[in-house]
Amino acid sequence: MNPEIGVIMGSTSDWETMKAACDVLDELEISYEKKVVSAHRTPDLMFDYAEQARSRGLKVIIAGAGGAAHLPGMVAAKTTLPVIGVPVQSKALQGLDSLLSIVQMPGGVPVATVAIGKAGATNAGLLAAQILGATSSDIAERLENRREKTRLAVIESSDTL
Amino acid sequence: MNPEIGVIMGSTSDWETMKAACDVLDELEISYEKKVVSAHRTPDLMFDYAEQARSRGLKVIIAGAGGAAHLPGMVAAKTTLPVIGVPVQSKALQGLDSLLSIVQMPGGVPVATVAIGKAGATNAGLLAAQILGATSSDIAERLENRREKTRLAVIESSDTL
Amino acid sequence: MNPEIGVIMGSTSDWETMKAACDVLDELEISYEKKVVSAHRTPDLMFDYAEQARSRGLKVIIAGAGGAAHLPGMVAAKTTLPVIGVPVQSKALQGLDSLLSIVQMPGGVPVATVAIGKAGATNAGLLAAQILGATSSDIAERLENRREKTRLAVIESSDTL
Amino acid sequence: MNPEIGVIMGSTSDWETMKAACDVLDELEISYEKKVVSAHRTPDLMFDYAEQARSRGLKVIIAGAGGAAHLPGMVAAKTTLPVIGVPVQSKALQGLDSLLSIVQMPGGVPVATVAIGKAGATNAGLLAAQILGATSSDIAERLENRREKTRLAVIESSDTL
Amino acid sequence: MNPEIGVIMGSTSDWETMKAACDVLDELEISYEKKVVSAHRTPDLMFDYAEQARSRGLKVIIAGAGGAAHLPGMVAAKTTLPVIGVPVQSKALQGLDSLLSIVQMPGGVPVATVAIGKAGATNAGLLAAQILGATSSDIAERLENRREKTRLAVIESSDTL
Amino acid sequence: MNPEIGVIMGSTSDWETMKAACDVLDELEISYEKKVVSAHRTPDLMFDYAEQARSRGLKVIIAGAGGAAHLPGMVAAKTTLPVIGVPVQSKALQGLDSLLSIVQMPGGVPVATVAIGKAGATNAGLLAAQILGATSSDIAERLENRREKTRLAVIESSDTL
Amino acid sequence: MNPEIGVIMGSTSDWETMKAACDVLDELEISYEKKVVSAHRTPDLMFDYAEQARSRGLKVIIAGAGGAAHLPGMVAAKTTLPVIGVPVQSKALQGLDSLLSIVQMPGGVPVATVAIGKAGATNAGLLAAQILGATSSDIAERLENRREKTRLAVIESSDTL
Amino acid sequence: MNPEIGVIMGSTSDWETMKAACDVLDELEISYEKKVVSAHRTPDLMFDYAEQARSRGLKVIIAGAGGAAHLPGMVAAKTTLPVIGVPVQSKALQGLDSLLSIVQMPGGVPVATVAIGKAGATNAGLLAAQILGATSSDIAERLENRREKTRLAVIESSDTL
Repeated sequence: MNPEIGVIMGSTSDWETMKAACDVLDELEISYEKKVVSAHRTPDLMFDYAEQARSRGLKVIIAGAGGAAHLPGMVAAKTTLPVIGVPVQSKALQGLDSLLSIVQMPGGVPVATVAIGKAGATNAGLLAAQILGATSSDIAERLENRREKTRLAVIESSDTL
Repeated sequence: MNPEIGVIMGSTSDWETMKAACDVLDELEISYEKKVVSAHRTPDLMFDYAEQARSRGLKVIIAGAGGAAHLPGMVAAKTTLPVIGVPVQSKALQGLDSLLSIVQMPGGVPVATVAIGKAGATNAGLLAAQILGATSSDIAERLENRREKTRLAVIESSDTL
Repeated sequence: MNPEIGVIMGSTSDWETMKAACDVLDELEISYEKKVVSAHRTPDLMFDYAEQARSRGLKVIIAGAGGAAHLPGMVAAKTTLPVIGVPVQSKALQGLDSLLSIVQMPGGVPVATVAIGKAGATNAGLLAAQILGATSSDIAERLENRREKTRLAVIESSDTL
Repeated sequence: MNPEIGVIMGSTSDWETMKAACDVLDELEISYEKKVVSAHRTPDLMFDYAEQARSRGLKVIIAGAGGAAHLPGMVAAKTTLPVIGVPVQSKALQGLDSLLSIVQMPGGVPVATVAIGKAGATNAGLLAAQILGATSSDIAERLENRREKTRLAVIESSDTL
Repeated sequence: MNPEIGVIMGSTSDWETMKAACDVLDELEISYEKKVVSAHRTPDLMFDYAEQARSRGLKVIIAGAGGAAHLPGMVAAKTTLPVIGVPVQSKALQGLDSLLSIVQMPGGVPVATVAIGKAGATNAGLLAAQILGATSSDIAERLENRREKTRLAVIESSDTL
Repeated sequence: MNPEIGVIMGSTSDWETMKAACDVLDELEISYEKKVVSAHRTPDLMFDYAEQARSRGLKVIIAGAGGAAHLPGMVAAKTTLPVIGVPVQSKALQGLDSLLSIVQMPGGVPVATVAIGKAGATNAGLLAAQILGATSSDIAERLENRREKTRLAVIESSDTL
Repeated sequence: MNPEIGVIMGSTSDWETMKAACDVLDELEISYEKKVVSAHRTPDLMFDYAEQARSRGLKVIIAGAGGAAHLPGMVAAKTTLPVIGVPVQSKALQGLDSLLSIVQMPGGVPVATVAIGKAGATNAGLLAAQILGATSSDIAERLENRREKTRLAVIESSDTL
Repeated sequence: MNPEIGVIMGSTSDWETMKAACDVLDELEISYEKKVVSAHRTPDLMFDYAEQARSRGLKVIIAGAGGAAHLPGMVAAKTTLPVIGVPVQSKALQGLDSLLSIVQMPGGVPVATVAIGKAGATNAGLLAAQILGATSSDIAERLENRREKTRLAVIESSDTL
């Protein structure tokens, strides 16, 4: 069966960040594929990937990139599937460039942007699940369970202060 | 029948921005409700709204706010429906505060953040539609048609330079 | 007897920062409690905490959080006790996101914001004491004594240049 | 009887902003005095004002300034009363300079900083009231009533969208 | 004969800025074409344009865009002609987003970035001419003459102070 | 034979960054010279270098500098050859100062600015080659070959995730 | 007799700002000359001006410029007279670029930087006077008198609140 | 004999930075004193220091501070001697707060601001010397000699690339 989520990133160096998205999808038992697709170094591959995404059965694309991060926005320009953009922390400007390059899309082509770095990648995985969960009570339940576990963990953690 | 999208905002002064989200939903014939819900001035109402959203049949919540914009993130903390955050342009810092307050969510509770201001609100409407369209070929088709119209409009516009 | 100051933070990882507030309160012999309360992971606990704060005898709440830091502002929305917000230094944007998320509150719900990081937490403890000291000559005196000690320490330190 | 709150500002041009603090104090029937005191142009007056504040019966000082805004921090250095700093919106950098100059105080001398501009001044008035209200049930009640009025106003405003 | 410079922009609203580039090319009698090509709304057209640019005889491409400005970088990914990027001033963040989206390209695909707004567009025209002038003494001479005229204008202007 | 590209930098400490430009030129077999030329410490040398550049046979100048980075812009003021500016990452502001000092040139004197740091230096080398390649099919071919190699490397790298 | 202060600026459009420096010098009866000298459009004139400044009897140079503001730093590189830099407010980035381009000078060549815009220009005039006043009791007295007038004006202004 | 330059700083932790100013003064054989004077922890000492500076024979004051850096501006408010402000690099915001707190002074009270950190401190020492050198041909000569040495060092360094 085809995976439901496509996780792509501009370079293998983004994997350290983007792994967090895959970890969440594993945890929630949602099928995904992962791939290096570079807007600037493999532009045609990127267009093919985006164009075929819906017909290949993908429901959501998670795209991570840093600096002048064009991958999420360009993928979003070539599909009407929801695209989640993860701003990878950059060296000089620490992800502010990544964030603005991803989030400030012009009217017409949205990218669902999450936080800079690993927390953002985790949330990209969760958001993808929430999108599926909007019409799937099964996934919604898994998400509720995860929330409950997190809630309890916070409460317990208070004793360690 | 209950609406599928909830459009909420922290104040009536956000309506000028958020109207753009509703315009897109009207154009795509997607049902929605709109409401002023303030994180800081009506916190209990906000929690009730978020808590009941799924059972009331909402599929996606669009939340717009400016400055220390807590509405999208707090709604997201109280529901596992996808929440789209629109950073409303603020007076002094021109929406940079709104953007960071919305997008920099900690791992565990995602907000799908779009651009600052009206372009962001337009894209919030489109993103909501794309989320529904991930599992609805009918909405996906309307989105493709809208894209095609936009494409043609750009090509025609070139003659006016 | 109930403590006068509530020191809360979004995560145990904030303790390294927030400990500085507790150290000052210890030094000034002001009673306090400390607790992990997360706006996003334990929203209901947060609301309960804020709602009951005054009746439980708290006089001031100190709340520390990082990134899209919603804890201080949301607590402030649920109580009319003074709330002091400490922006914890974040990884990517180094606390600028924390600061703007806390300080840029809309008219109606103030958060008394202090500096990013440990210096801010120290000052949160002192500010809480100053608030009590506004109507307590005893605490005011302790604060004056601390100032005098600091003054002398600066003067002595000059010899070590 | 002496006023409880001192509202000072660096220049008459700050009055347009700082008036919002006085309006709130008027509304809550809390006594205050207002004065132009400039850190840079009347430094001795500033020191005298701060030094005598407690013995003159003031409980809280609200200080507004823009640009390299030193007034709140320097007043805070000369009194152990709580000092609330209002960053006035500056021309070139729109208050980011005012905000950082006020909020980033070193450990030892806190300034309770509020938002840039009028919303911040409104909140300075409210915060001063909340500080008095920490030990006065009468003022606390007035604050609760104001909150309730605001809450109802938000709910009503929703119909005008 | 085919033009030597291609001037493209993401939207007709960028023309007000990009006209300055064309004005310089007119002044220096360098042939150019101008066209609206949108990275997000006409992605395939953009790729075709970039791919065919060299064979169509273009020597340099000038691309202007604002916000999450992907046009210059994506065109640069599809051609090895020099691409000059003009950050168009955006509404909320005043071109900082445009600038970072254009200039912070990853190693491998350069964009020659100029200043935000009209001055940048003027300089894009001049830079294109300088690129041609690196191997054309005729154009180099026209550029030297323009410089000399500017120099004299500055000197004369001093009398008007 | 004289080199075609001049690579200059404000200080030997910039070499760690600027070496990346020279590496690319080596790889593409384009002749270059490298030199420390400081705008502030050797202003006359800088002017001589820029003034003689064209007659010495240089086609493009690559200039790297950090902080108040005046080297690229001042060289550009003294020659009509294309000047590529590399913002070297600075200590306190991490290259934001370098970037703005280089890119925000007034209309009349362009600097082709690339990204902050090593990626920018790599791209400066490539951009210089692309400028030569605009009129040299030989260099253009070498650039196309490099692109193809990069493309294949990305595709292969995907297996390592 | 030769003037003591040289006031230069990059363009006549800077005059609106720089006039404030001249007004102060007029008020303090300090002789000055004013001139348009552009770093980028008249680089040789700039070098001549700086080189001859000391021998022409100038004691201090005030230089105003905006954007990639190289004038103050380059003049400072060509003279050991004190150079005061005034960051003129720029259109897109509102003077942040001007400020960083002027103030972030490398060790070895200082520029005495003042605030962005007119307040900065006023202070440039005063600082020039203070530099002369460091060794002239006459000018020092005029400065003290001006301070006293300002002090009284602030005190009087308080009645107008 | 009294020293000509006063070097003050807000804390011993600033010494690591400020030592660079003293090193330059030592090198140029200009007499100075150094002292910890804190705006916030020793405000009265600060005022006394500034008030007596001129009569004690000081010609220039160099003041370094970080964060909400009020020392240079407040000293400048209490003397008409030239005051040079050194923004010490802060932990969270890396000196941007220090810079804006020092440089954005209101019209009437100038602070001659230099770069953030050690380079700035070096330049503060040089600027103090240049101020003395404006009316002392002896110091001017020492400064010219230092410049010449720096120039030669740059030229020699080029061989090490």
